[in-house]
Amino acid sequence: MSHYDELMEFERQTQALGQIAGRLGWDQETVMPRGAGPQRAEESEALEHVLHARRTDPRVGDWLTAIDAASLGPVAQANVRHIQRRFDRTSRVPVKLAGEIARVTSSSQRIWADARAENDFKAFAPVLQKVVELKRHEAEALAIGGDPYDALLDDYEPGATASELEAMFDALRPRLVDLRDRVMGADHQPAPLTGTFDEQAQMKLTREIAKAFGYDMAHGRIDKAVHPFSSGSGLDVRITTRTSATDPFGSIYSTVHEVGHACYEQHIDRDYLLTPLGAGVSMGVHESQSRIYENQMGRSRAFTEWLFARMKDVFGPLSTKDADAFYGAVNRVTPGFIRTESDEVQYNLHVLLRFDLERDLISGKLAVRDLEEAWNTRFEKDFGVKVDKPSNGCLQDVHWSVGLFGYFPTYSLGNVYAGCLMKALRAQVPEVDSHLSKGEPAEATKWLADNLQRHGGLFEPREVVTRACGGEEPSEAPLLEYLEAKFADVYRL
Amino acid sequence: MSHYDELMEFERQTQALGQIAGRLGWDQETVMPRGAGPQRAEESEALEHVLHARRTDPRVGDWLTAIDAASLGPVAQANVRHIQRRFDRTSRVPVKLAGEIARVTSSSQRIWADARAENDFKAFAPVLQKVVELKRHEAEALAIGGDPYDALLDDYEPGATASELEAMFDALRPRLVDLRDRVMGADHQPAPLTGTFDEQAQMKLTREIAKAFGYDMAHGRIDKAVHPFSSGSGLDVRITTRTSATDPFGSIYSTVHEVGHACYEQHIDRDYLLTPLGAGVSMGVHESQSRIYENQMGRSRAFTEWLFARMKDVFGPLSTKDADAFYGAVNRVTPGFIRTESDEVQYNLHVLLRFDLERDLISGKLAVRDLEEAWNTRFEKDFGVKVDKPSNGCLQDVHWSVGLFGYFPTYSLGNVYAGCLMKALRAQVPEVDSHLSKGEPAEATKWLADNLQRHGGLFEPREVVTRACGGEEPSEAPLLEYLEAKFADVYRL
Repeated sequence: MSHYDELMEFERQTQALGQIAGRLGWDQETVMPRGAGPQRAEESEALEHVLHARRTDPRVGDWLTAIDAASLGPVAQANVRHIQRRFDRTSRVPVKLAGEIARVTSSSQRIWADARAENDFKAFAPVLQKVVELKRHEAEALAIGGDPYDALLDDYEPGATASELEAMFDALRPRLVDLRDRVMGADHQPAPLTGTFDEQAQMKLTREIAKAFGYDMAHGRIDKAVHPFSSGSGLDVRITTRTSATDPFGSIYSTVHEVGHACYEQHIDRDYLLTPLGAGVSMGVHESQSRIYENQMGRSRAFTEWLFARMKDVFGPLSTKDADAFYGAVNRVTPGFIRTESDEVQYNLHVLLRFDLERDLISGKLAVRDLEEAWNTRFEKDFGVKVDKPSNGCLQDVHWSVGLFGYFPTYSLGNVYAGCLMKALRAQVPEVDSHLSKGEPAEATKWLADNLQRHGGLFEPREVVTRACGGEEPSEAPLLEYLEAKFADVYRL
Repeated sequence: MSHYDELMEFERQTQALGQIAGRLGWDQETVMPRGAGPQRAEESEALEHVLHARRTDPRVGDWLTAIDAASLGPVAQANVRHIQRRFDRTSRVPVKLAGEIARVTSSSQRIWADARAENDFKAFAPVLQKVVELKRHEAEALAIGGDPYDALLDDYEPGATASELEAMFDALRPRLVDLRDRVMGADHQPAPLTGTFDEQAQMKLTREIAKAFGYDMAHGRIDKAVHPFSSGSGLDVRITTRTSATDPFGSIYSTVHEVGHACYEQHIDRDYLLTPLGAGVSMGVHESQSRIYENQMGRSRAFTEWLFARMKDVFGPLSTKDADAFYGAVNRVTPGFIRTESDEVQYNLHVLLRFDLERDLISGKLAVRDLEEAWNTRFEKDFGVKVDKPSNGCLQDVHWSVGLFGYFPTYSLGNVYAGCLMKALRAQVPEVDSHLSKGEPAEATKWLADNLQRHGGLFEPREVVTRACGGEEPSEAPLLEYLEAKFADVYRL
């Protein structure tokens, strides 16, 4: 066997064990008996231990050194690039620091949850201070002289830099604030959908919609969980959803969102199974798929036309009188503090706020003790509303408590990518609206599968989006144009 | 840390990974998407690889050598004994032989399944020949001069020997054959329960019964699967069942059987969690628990009295006119070829046949090419019926195809142990029938939990049964007396 083959055989087992770890997470959120938690914690820790040892195994370094990358084909080169990147990152962080981060973040999530329940930022600040310090040390170790925040960002969005994103987001923010103000001040305000909706019928409908969007039930399944998520790669990609009797859009759109993530994983070239190329290439590209399924397609006028008729079949008469009113109900923009409950207009403003604050936390420009005030000031500026309590403000997200700095911007990058991809898709599949209005997104999702999803980790994130867009570099313009046109229509601006 | 502490920390992680492997098996049989098989095979293999490497890790040998067992308390001594035993067994088998066994048995199961479907023993014989040869080599390596069959048996029933079992089973066989003949020739033949039974209601009823028998749903769950099984130890012990619209006893009694296995695992002292003592001590003792729940308690006159009334509530009028006729229907003895569908009278005859034949296969006294004839001759002798086709004869069980030689006798040993334990239980809990007739087996199952189950792997298998029986050594007598009395009652002999 060549060094490359040896490396890949070892890597394949590591990937397989990683899939098991993911499935344990799925099990925990869906079917695990409620009293099994303490045992499960030990099981997961033991498996993480095995995975960490494999990822830092000195043989991996030896194989990487021995391989002559130039002599390899493009797929093999991409595999080596991914393994090298992960090996370098893991090797750069001192073992003691990595252990301390694992230890602190395993307890800080609970402290955060308690503080949020008590609406007490001061109870969370000391451990957040510790997490920020540790992540700063980690970032410095990873950056080897470069920008520490970029080094963290690179874990979720390889190749992206804060300054690039900053330019993109700075262009986004004023136009989103302006759109938000115009929408909020519009004379026409769509009414919400009201009523109660049988939850079993909701589950049945979400399955039907998931399949229509291309989710392959032979390689996946849908269960209920507290938080919707997608889990696994390759031949076993499961999603979860939740239902509420008064909010059917919750289950429908969270399902379409997760179907976007899951389809990306399911459609990756089967030759890449259990290799570094066999999973979505970055958080931003992943989010572009979930968002384009959920928003650009799922919340379009065309698809909601079909959905309006289908929901009348399933649930009987609806409170919205026609398809236009239903489209308005799906796309209502209302004031709100919570990112995860936000609409398309305000969502990125929530993210941009976090992006700016977390860069200042990592650079030290913003002290943890001043975070609450900084958050509230910025929120009022962008949203025109005073934050009433920390659980509606800087304590609402779990991310920072577990050390996820550099993750937030990938949500907005995903939206920007979704804007670019939808523009390219419309140019290539001009009948997309006519298909969506029949509840048939299959040709659009096939375009995404063929042009982006199937590549998995073969190309760098920005490159795969650029290729799908026919060589056009991603920019915020298509997303802004889409949002401005759509909400001018919904709100009759 | 002491050598013992180091060993136990390492062992604890191995145990945790073993629990994950078990849970993957559960997932595969219950919730896994149907197209995920090929990926799952690689995942399971990767985890088995990790487990095997840990079990043969030379550090385990070093720790075992360094530990002064005499200085340890009884729990620690038992832990060391279990680890030493597993390490010795694994170390004695040459790596090449272990690999070949794994390779051959991974394909032989499929060959067996195809041969069974085709009713073609000759298609299975060559690979069975190979499996028998490999297992014989393994047995010789394990036995180091002792009896090879005993060395295989020891994997499932530590400390048991074939000659001991032979004496026990030789005493069992003539009286079982005699009882079988008397029952089959009796004037009074109970009628079966007929009708159709709502399958959702069956699932609801089995849950109710599982809880009544002490199954803890906070640390377990019940799902449907093709084959009923129990899986996991400690805080997460799951069972499966199956339903048939025309056979409600199938789901009820397979559930009570698996509840017996699961309660054993759930009731082990929590201090033994994720240690070698934290699982059932042997297959025989495990089967004693499943059988005492299913047969001695579940199929008793007392419990079926309650069940008759409860089933009338759930399903409406039944074909059996009263509790006595219902008791007869639960305990019908009918001719049949298949071990797994057998009644209490004939079950052990099925097992004893296999025990005798597999010993002769391993010793070489019986050639694989002569197995079909030997099976058919013996079957006719014990059951009075000619085998009509191999799928009803020597091709019916999966065990030999995957190398499980020495496993079968533990089923009957379990029945013998169940007989002994029920005798002791009746002496200590004289109100057992009065409780069972109210559908309340809790005091009986508590007695089993306190006297046997909680010990897990602390004592050797035979010892833990003897202790529970107040020092009386196990024998076949109580089982025979129980069966003769019960079936004289059912069949009015």
